[in-house]
Amino acid sequence: MTLDNRHTSTIQERIDQKTKPTGSLGQLESTALQLALIQSQGQQNAVRQIHLNQPTMLLFAGDHGIAKEGVSIAPSEVTQQMVLNFLAGGAAINQFCRLNAIDLKVIDCGILLPVDTDNPNFILQRLGTRTQNLAQQAAMTEAQVAQGLELGGAIARQTIESGCNLLMFGEMGIGNTSSASALLAALSQTDVAYCVGKGTGINDAQLLNKVSLIRQGVTRYAENGEPDAFRALAELGGFEIVQMVGAFLAASEQRVPVLVDGFIVSVAAYIATLLNPDARDIMIFAHRSEEQGHQKVLALLEAVPLLDLGLRLGEGTGAALAYPLLQASAEFYNHMASFADAGVTV
Amino acid sequence: MTLDNRHTSTIQERIDQKTKPTGSLGQLESTALQLALIQSQGQQNAVRQIHLNQPTMLLFAGDHGIAKEGVSIAPSEVTQQMVLNFLAGGAAINQFCRLNAIDLKVIDCGILLPVDTDNPNFILQRLGTRTQNLAQQAAMTEAQVAQGLELGGAIARQTIESGCNLLMFGEMGIGNTSSASALLAALSQTDVAYCVGKGTGINDAQLLNKVSLIRQGVTRYAENGEPDAFRALAELGGFEIVQMVGAFLAASEQRVPVLVDGFIVSVAAYIATLLNPDARDIMIFAHRSEEQGHQKVLALLEAVPLLDLGLRLGEGTGAALAYPLLQASAEFYNHMASFADAGVTV
Repeated sequence: MTLDNRHTSTIQERIDQKTKPTGSLGQLESTALQLALIQSQGQQNAVRQIHLNQPTMLLFAGDHGIAKEGVSIAPSEVTQQMVLNFLAGGAAINQFCRLNAIDLKVIDCGILLPVDTDNPNFILQRLGTRTQNLAQQAAMTEAQVAQGLELGGAIARQTIESGCNLLMFGEMGIGNTSSASALLAALSQTDVAYCVGKGTGINDAQLLNKVSLIRQGVTRYAENGEPDAFRALAELGGFEIVQMVGAFLAASEQRVPVLVDGFIVSVAAYIATLLNPDARDIMIFAHRSEEQGHQKVLALLEAVPLLDLGLRLGEGTGAALAYPLLQASAEFYNHMASFADAGVTV
Repeated sequence: MTLDNRHTSTIQERIDQKTKPTGSLGQLESTALQLALIQSQGQQNAVRQIHLNQPTMLLFAGDHGIAKEGVSIAPSEVTQQMVLNFLAGGAAINQFCRLNAIDLKVIDCGILLPVDTDNPNFILQRLGTRTQNLAQQAAMTEAQVAQGLELGGAIARQTIESGCNLLMFGEMGIGNTSSASALLAALSQTDVAYCVGKGTGINDAQLLNKVSLIRQGVTRYAENGEPDAFRALAELGGFEIVQMVGAFLAASEQRVPVLVDGFIVSVAAYIATLLNPDARDIMIFAHRSEEQGHQKVLALLEAVPLLDLGLRLGEGTGAALAYPLLQASAEFYNHMASFADAGVTV
């Protein structure tokens, strides 16, 4: 739903009355404004306190048929190995979630080798074994896209119903930068070479091959019909990407902010805005990744991310690292003295 | 003291064995390396755990004679008002220190209107009432510089002795961007106009006046003798800046890392490296401020800061906001699984 802007000026005045030169907290001020505005929706008055409750990282995992072509540094088996690492607490995202008191749930959206676990933070929402090879044929059926949007929306709504009012999405899936690059090129009508990067670290020859394979898929999409986000997801998407798009749409409908991670999550965010432009209002951008296509999608979303640390890991790590800046935005909004309170000469 | 690099490769290998593509945690990896190397000094083996104990913000406050010339948006009385705000917990730095569990101590290095308080986090180390107007005469005597370096070093050493192994410095003082700009121009032989910014928000006419006043001071310094950091501090410094230089030198001698805040703290850091080049080894740079001269001093220090949020507040706010990224660097170094531990295919 579109945000009602009626409380914007009240919130901005509240920020400007804090004991600091106007605007001197930079992006923390725009972040506080956005969070306060979202939490003031449907209220008589602008909120005087921003509350961040039960922040939750939903980590969507899926495998990709195109990985067979050698577009990644690792084989598809590594997706399962990393899911097990997430469940055992050994990955980077585990450390950052624990440090910042972020709940972590791992969602199997369709990984090649399923895992057998009764871990309560593991959720099965498989759309298949892995996608088809997008270089050769449609990655999935339109029925799978519809089901994925539904399931992604359901897990976001369920998390919100359990008390979370700030979501983060992460992803894992060998080959998923290829899918994200293909979707970005197809939907923004940008040359494939500009949308494709080295993922987590392939060499120059592998990069040329990756561009050429993705171009095959994008060309097939362009020749098969009119531009359409839903059809693009079927031709070029990934199971985890489709579910993230559904989760963004549900968060928007529920007016819950999402702290958006790097390239792949940002592509899902972009697709959500194509399906519903209002979804942009609940997005806060965590970081600028090293992946080349990320610069493009951030520009399309008119997004200025909080961090720029040279990250290129995924898993939601950038969002988990940026979360303390949202807490800091809330803290200054909630607790800083005004000039009048503190007796400071304006 | 210079850092012994003998454990560098062991630490780097440890980082590279973590379950992530090599280098994919960007600046967190270089930060972990620096912290682990500092904490491995004098040890037989490289440390397997980075510990951040009792992180402490030392907030140095001082007043400036040049403030009488209208170089700031606020009068010198505001320094006292903000010190009272720090002691009452109402300022931005209070919120960020509380959020991130950082101890905060406020040091009166010589503010125009003293405060009467028995707050245990308030420390009196006054070098005078305020500096002389640097546009017209030496800001302080060389005896005051010597005493300031001593007192700043003493508070840093005392904080370290009480159990702190990570320091942050902040500053408050109406007019102190003028002093910092003058020191930077004088010591780096850079044109004054390039080193001077709008502080926390003066207009264009005030900016021209600020440049012209600072140029008077810098010209006097240049004509009165050979380039010399100690003499520059006397001609152009501030009581809080001198004490921060002393604190940097003591931290270096004790091999305790300092997370460096914005423009004014970075100028103190730069001067510390002129007095002892080894001091650079213990510095981690928190953020890139909006202040124009900060770009220059960061380049001189070959520093790549962690954050770039458009901050221009001072008080140590950038350092307090960057601190969670140091915690994250320590967490991944200490607790992430290796490829072997997690059974992930390299």
